[in-house]
Order: sequence, then C-alpha cells, then structure tokens
Amino acid sequence: MSFYPSYLLCLCLGVLCVVFVSFWNAQWRGGFAWDGTGKQFNWHPVFMVTGLVVLYGNAAVLYRVPLTWGQDKTPWKLAHAGTLLLALLLSILGLCAVFDFHNAQNTPNVYSLHSWIGICTVALFASQWVVGFAAFLLPWSPVELRKLIKPTHVWMGAIILVLSIISCISGINEKLFFSLKGNVNGTQPYAKLPSEALFANSLGVLIVVFGLVVLYILSNQGWQRPEPNHDGEGYRPLQHEEH
Amino acid sequence: MSFYPSYLLCLCLGVLCVVFVSFWNAQWRGGFAWDGTGKQFNWHPVFMVTGLVVLYGNAAVLYRVPLTWGQDKTPWKLAHAGTLLLALLLSILGLCAVFDFHNAQNTPNVYSLHSWIGICTVALFASQWVVGFAAFLLPWSPVELRKLIKPTHVWMGAIILVLSIISCISGINEKLFFSLKGNVNGTQPYAKLPSEALFANSLGVLIVVFGLVVLYILSNQGWQRPEPNHDGEGYRPLQHEEH
Repeated sequence: MSFYPSYLLCLCLGVLCVVFVSFWNAQWRGGFAWDGTGKQFNWHPVFMVTGLVVLYGNAAVLYRVPLTWGQDKTPWKLAHAGTLLLALLLSILGLCAVFDFHNAQNTPNVYSLHSWIGICTVALFASQWVVGFAAFLLPWSPVELRKLIKPTHVWMGAIILVLSIISCISGINEKLFFSLKGNVNGTQPYAKLPSEALFANSLGVLIVVFGLVVLYILSNQGWQRPEPNHDGEGYRPLQHEEH
Repeated sequence: MSFYPSYLLCLCLGVLCVVFVSFWNAQWRGGFAWDGTGKQFNWHPVFMVTGLVVLYGNAAVLYRVPLTWGQDKTPWKLAHAGTLLLALLLSILGLCAVFDFHNAQNTPNVYSLHSWIGICTVALFASQWVVGFAAFLLPWSPVELRKLIKPTHVWMGAIILVLSIISCISGINEKLFFSLKGNVNGTQPYAKLPSEALFANSLGVLIVVFGLVVLYILSNQGWQRPEPNHDGEGYRPLQHEEH
C-alpha cells in the first residue's frame, strides 16, 4: 500500500475532527467566550482535540512524507518541533480554560479519572518536547546521545498519542452525560441519542480512527525516512528501531 | 534491558488490575449477582478488565517469553488461542451482564460513546480471533497466507488492546459520575474524591500502565520469538514485520 492515500486520510480526518469539535460546541453548547461560564469550558475540548490530537498526530508523521526525504532534515525538524510546540501551547490553553471555568464555578479541579489521565498526558508531552528539543535541536548535542534517545522518543511519541485519545474519549463521554440530562433547557437525555449525542459520539469515533491511521503510518517501517549511514555509504532505513 | 523484569511487571500489574476491579465492586458497589439489579452490572467491569485487558494482554505477549523459544510452537499457539478465547468469552459475558441489567431496568442500550467504542472493540477482537484461528491453527492454511496475514494480525492485536483501554477508562470514569452523586445513600460526590473515587481512579491508572507495559514488550523487536528460516538455515528473527 502506498503512503499518500494513508496520509491524505490522516489529513482529512484531522480536519474533520477540528470541524466536528468546533461545530459541536458552537451549535449545541452555546459557543465560545473567556468569561468563567460554560462558554469558556467549550474552548477545552476544541483546544485539546486540535492540539493534543490533530496537530500532534500530523507533526508525528511529518518525517514519513517521502517529499521531505533526501533534503536537509533541519527545516523539517524545525517544522516538527514548531508544530508540536503549537500543539503543546494549545493543550496548555485548553487546560487553562477548564481550570478557570472550575475556579469561577467553585468546582474542584483534577478529581476525575479523565482529568488524571489528561494531566499526565500533557505533562508527558511537555517532557517529551523538552527532551526532544535538547537532544535533537541543540547543535552541541552529541550524535551518540541522539542515537540513544531516538527509539524512546519515537515510542513515547506514539504512546502520548494513545494517552491523548484515551483522554479525549473519556472527556467527550463525560461531557455528554453532564450536558444531556433531559431535564435542563428541554434537552433530551443522552440515552435517547438526540442529534447532539449522535454528532459528538461520531466526533469520538473520528478521533479514534484518526489516531489509528497515525499509528498505522508510524508503525510501517517501509515508510520511515531513510537516515544517512554514518559509515558514509549513503542512505539506509533505520531497521532496528524499537517501535 | 532484559525481558523478564518487564514480563514480571506485566504479570503483577495484571493481577493488581483484577484485584482492584473486583474489590471496587465488592466493597463499594454492593457485590455480585445475576438478578437484573446493580449487582449484575458489577460483573461488567470485572469481566471486561479481566478478559479484554488482562487475559488479552498476557496472551499477546506469550510468544515473547524466551522460555518458549526453540520448542515446538504448536502448544504455545494453542495456549495463545485458548487464553484469547477465554478472554473473548469473558468479554461477551461482560456485555451480557450490562445488556441484561439495562433491559431489566428499561434503560436503552448502546447509546454512549463508551458503549460504541466498547462494542466495536469486542467485535474486532472476535473477528481477529476467527481470522487468527483460520489462518494460523487450521493445518491446511497455506504458509504464504500466514506470512501475508501475520503483520496485520500482530498490528491489530496491539490496536485492539489500545481500544480496550480506551473503553475501560471511559467506562470507569462514567460509572464513577453515575454512582458518586453525593445525594444517594450518603455517598460523597466524585468531585470530593472519596476513598472509592481514589481507589477506582487508581484502577484506571493501573490499567493504563499495564497496557503500556504490554505495548512496550510487543514493540521491542529484540524480544520477538525467532522464527525458523524457510531456507532451512535455522532460526532468524522476523526483522521486517510492520509493528
């Protein structure tokens, strides 16, 4: 199977995830504001899905695009690190949205399993970014250190995406039970599957499928960027990486 | 890093997951029965965590145990397929528990995102088992077919575990919001993190860590069972598998 159909699928699913999460919160949850009300909470799913899942996943597969091979790796490293930094900043902003909302409503923070896993995911992502920056972008970082860290960096990259998806699915599920109680503002209960529930469940399915496509691209050894052979014999794929 | 510490961790975490999910439902949720009440529902998390996560994960890493290498593979294939069949039966029984409970309580089935992902996970698991049985256990299945299917079987095996963990975490999160409302039977609300919430959140963390250890073992190419070289030159590891 060739790379580009999978990559196109990854791009389309990513765009769909962002459109779905934004439309859900704009159409059924009252839209967006930064005022301590439910409208501020609505930024939380939008920023987390956009940053922690879609931008993150696209940054993870960037080196797999054959168009980038054979060229100097530095601009692609900067694009990888830059997209991930944007993803990290959006994720942190997404956390700020929910913390601010909870504080304004006098609701405790970080008690649910969703929040425990979500916070650990963002913390791991931040650590991964800092270690990746220090090891692969600082020019004085030794080649031996890069070789040592790379398999772990690649493996952790995939695992953080898995944790992101776990966090998103548990969060969407929780939000729908919170919002669709069937006794407030004339909303139907979640159990009756009103259009909002069908739409947000579909967002959850899209997120899972997007994640699986990214993991599929990452796991295909034939799609790895060929790395220069340090014996000076040109390019060879990194065969023995653990991932 | 040697294999056995990771394997020991995998075994211990698996036992802890089963102990935690059983203790949670016995201690705080009223124990077990098959009578259409909440006590019947309690079998659902116990069977899903035991079957879909713990038995499944242990069956997945079975071929990685070096003790089994160099021996005839057939008994280990039977152990792999047998453990997975038990895991599948427990998962189906776990679904029966919740469907029966919902029907007895006149609650709709399969409306939440948790249930959508969970049902798809069990369906994929059942398909994977049937295809695996037909391709790798039926003696007349051709070697070329086995070679063709194996990378997909291995990849799908890991992906089904990821989906199982997504299902379990969203389910535990949902159950805690349902049960800990702070107005029934004098229970404290989830947001106040009573001991049940702390315990069940820890179960969620244990499940995630167990899953990551299994994925780590599966991803380590050096820990794959060496397969006989079909040129008759003895054993060589399968280097080019996609996973």
